[in-house]
Formats: sequence, C-alpha cells, structure tokens
Amino acid sequence: MTTTRVSHVDLVDQTAAQVRAAIRNGDYDGHTAGLAAGKLQCNLAILPERFALDFLRFCQRNPKPCPIVAVGDSGDPMLPTLGHDIDIRTDVPRYSVFRNGQLSDEVTDISREWSDDLVTVALGCSFTFENALLRNGVPVRHLETGKNVPMYRSDIALVSAGMFGGDMVVTMRPIPEHLVDQAKEISRRYPQAHGAPIAMGDPAQIGISDLTKPDWGDAVEIKPGEVPVYWACGVTPQNVLLQAALPICITHAPGHMLIADVAEGAETTILPNH
Amino acid sequence: MTTTRVSHVDLVDQTAAQVRAAIRNGDYDGHTAGLAAGKLQCNLAILPERFALDFLRFCQRNPKPCPIVAVGDSGDPMLPTLGHDIDIRTDVPRYSVFRNGQLSDEVTDISREWSDDLVTVALGCSFTFENALLRNGVPVRHLETGKNVPMYRSDIALVSAGMFGGDMVVTMRPIPEHLVDQAKEISRRYPQAHGAPIAMGDPAQIGISDLTKPDWGDAVEIKPGEVPVYWACGVTPQNVLLQAALPICITHAPGHMLIADVAEGAETTILPNH
Repeated sequence: MTTTRVSHVDLVDQTAAQVRAAIRNGDYDGHTAGLAAGKLQCNLAILPERFALDFLRFCQRNPKPCPIVAVGDSGDPMLPTLGHDIDIRTDVPRYSVFRNGQLSDEVTDISREWSDDLVTVALGCSFTFENALLRNGVPVRHLETGKNVPMYRSDIALVSAGMFGGDMVVTMRPIPEHLVDQAKEISRRYPQAHGAPIAMGDPAQIGISDLTKPDWGDAVEIKPGEVPVYWACGVTPQNVLLQAALPICITHAPGHMLIADVAEGAETTILPNH
Repeated sequence: MTTTRVSHVDLVDQTAAQVRAAIRNGDYDGHTAGLAAGKLQCNLAILPERFALDFLRFCQRNPKPCPIVAVGDSGDPMLPTLGHDIDIRTDVPRYSVFRNGQLSDEVTDISREWSDDLVTVALGCSFTFENALLRNGVPVRHLETGKNVPMYRSDIALVSAGMFGGDMVVTMRPIPEHLVDQAKEISRRYPQAHGAPIAMGDPAQIGISDLTKPDWGDAVEIKPGEVPVYWACGVTPQNVLLQAALPICITHAPGHMLIADVAEGAETTILPNH
C-alpha cells in the first residue's frame, strides 16, 4: 500500500528541500536513491535519552559502520545542522518502529510516536561513496543491475558500549581487479560514509560462508577478474539496536533515507550558517 | 616545581607505551611535543556523566575545534580503543582540575579526583597536522622559533548543545603565499585533528583585532609574502567547559597531552585488535 502522489522520476531534479516537502506533505513515500544528487543521505536511529550516551559511545567506537553525522537535542525533532527546517517526525519517507526488539509498525510519519524523551542520531550512508565511485569510473554492480546491495553478517566483532555490541554487517561490491586500489582510495575520502573497505577477497576470512546467499539485499554476480570488496554497512547499528531490544527505537525503512542539505563532499556534516 | 627524573630528550626515541610508563611512574611530567613521533596525541576533557551527552552533542556539532577520538565508559579510567593499558588517571604528564569554572589544581595524577561518575572524552590535537605540514615542506613558524602557537578568541559562533556554547578559539600560522593551498589540502586530510583552515588573511573578518596580542600562547612574526592562516583550536572545548562552570572538570595541562598508540595517519582513531 502506498500513499504516493508523485513518483520517483518527478522528484529527480528537485532540491533536497523540495523532496523533503513532498515527503512531509504525504505526496511521496518511496525510496530515496538517486534523489537530490550531491546531498548527504542519512541512516536514522531514534531512541530514548537514557540509552543515547551509550549509543553515541558505541558509534564513536565503531566509526566505519556507524559514522555519526548529527545528534538532535532530547525531545527536539529538528536537525538544524543537517538542513533547513528538517523535522524528523515527517521528513523521512518511511520509518520502522521497533518495540522491545520486534518490528511493530512501518509508518510514513512518527508524530504520534514522538515524545520529549527521544533523541535522533543520524548516521552516514553508502550512497555517498557509491556516487563517488561512479563519478570516478568505478562500476557498482547492484546499481547497474537495479538490485539492492548484498549485505552479510560477518564475524568482525564490534567494540561494545553498554548494552550495544555484536558483529559487523558488511556490504559487498565486486570490483575489477585493476580498479580495486582506486575504489579503496576514493571511498577512504568519505569517513562520514563508511570510508575505505574493511576487507577484500575470500569471504571466509570475515566469516561469510556463501556470497550467493546474502542476509539482506540481493545476490550479485562476480565476474572473472573481479574481486569481492567488503565495506562496513549501515545496517550494523540497526541490527545492534534490534538486539538491544529497547522499549522503543525508530529507524528509517531500508532505502528510505533522510536527505540533508549538507553536500556529500563537504569537509564536515555541519551546514554552514544554518 | 617538577618531579621529573627523566628529561624530554631521554624520551624522544621511546615508544608511546614507554613514554606513558615514564609518566605513570612519576619519572616525567613535562610537555609531549615531539614525543612518540607518528602517534596520535590527544586533548582531554573529563566530566561528570550527567553532562556527557550534551558535551558529546556539542563536540559532534563543532567537529573542527572538537574532534572526538575516544569516549570512555562512565567511571572507567581505561581507554582501550586509543592504546594498550592507557589509564587516564596516571598516564598524562599534567592535568588541570577545574571546580565551578575556576582552576583549582594542577596535578600529575588524578587518582584522588577520579570517581565512578566521571567520563573521559579525548579530542584530536594540532600536533597531527603540524607534523604533516612539516613532512611536506610547509614551515611552521612557532615550531621554528621554539614558541607556543598563538591562539585567539574569534567571533565565530559555535553550535550550542545544552549548557555548552560560545565562540571558537583559533590558532594562527603564517604560511608563505605559494604554500597556502598545499597547507589547506594537507590539513584537510586530518579531520581528527581540526582539518582544513577555517579562515585566512585579514584577522578582522573573524573578530581578531590584533595578531600581535594573542589570548593564549606567543605572538609570531608574519614575514612579507606570508598569509596568516587560521585553524580551529583545541583550546575551544576547554574554554567552553570553563564557561559552563561544571562542579568538576579535568583537562590536560596545555602541551601535556595524552599519547595514544593509534597512528596519527590512521583512517580511524580506533586501535585495530585492541
């Protein structure tokens, strides 16, 4: 079921503010890939204040899967450092609401769930470095083939903080061998978007038994002469939050991100003169 | 008064762990510039847990003056992500203890001040990008002349969080005009150490009336053909903490930093396999 009145193609040439307005007005609730080109898109984790300090510690200790790009004031739905008039209750196309570690609802507005006790944490997302790879001539298989990126549970232990911990989730992109160094160098320039790869080659070295069976997303073909390259994935914090089974926790629905006014190539994720 | 039994020159070729051991044992309490070359050095802010969430929000919103490189667990003096066996109570040469916004003590050990309620926040420091400038042939005047870097209160407003806010403190380094772009590009590579300059040229544009009268540190000569270049300064958070007048707050004494095992050029400040 969808309430969408404008389509993805209608929004492709719109600014970040225009896309957010369409989302806020209930005119669009689809995915955000390819929208507001050049602007930072963000993963979202909204949680009660009493867990926020430990969650920020957890993210700080695991900066590759969990790059913090904004933290809201307790109870305040606005995120002025990311963009003008961003209201986190209405400006994301779809949200997943978790209660006690179980998906409770998928909604297009969290005004009813919002409370004075909630803190918003926005985290960087892989769209940023994927766009940079494409701009620099490094092909990205799942985008070429219209699929979702394959994601896998690895056995790379995260650094714990309080109740938050577990293993890292990684994405895999097959890269032609002669472009691997370039892909590494380009993605390293985006620490706010998972940075350089965390491994490449044999999946067994990071505890993945079968690349044709991703835990999330779609399997993609690895052609002769290509190397599977693994990056830290933004599903990691969602997975960790789910395992922590907080009384309430709200995330974006997969692929339905917050679009910021901050440029994805900016030195920091703080909007100048906001 | 000093309890130093070994001198700075004795420690120059020692590892970070060896320098920290000399400090912990009470054999050294001097400044750390030039020690453990290639390792990250850190500014320090230790504060009660109830202020930690707002302080982390403040640092996240002001990443250039306040780049977070580690956050300890509440009451835990160890910082395992920065280095092996780092005990923040003993491993920094000198500490400033502030009570209610006033300098109360300067000590070489904070075991007596430590409590289950305290949280350590380590922040990046300008030594990292200064070393990179020098390695790349960009001269740094205050180092050439054996002075402390000149620091100034600017009128650049910080983004507030809770009780934390104010204006940014900046450092100034005169750079030959033909090397300014290079200095900018090199320092931008170190987001964990203040990153690219925040301004250059006329000091009036950022509210500084007289470069010959720094608010902290020493004035340095600006030679013909040189441009004054301004970077965000790690004194900013100290100044902000002081103004917030917390019941207790502990920082490193100026120049007397925490030396980490993390390499200053590492992609993240999280020690692998710690």
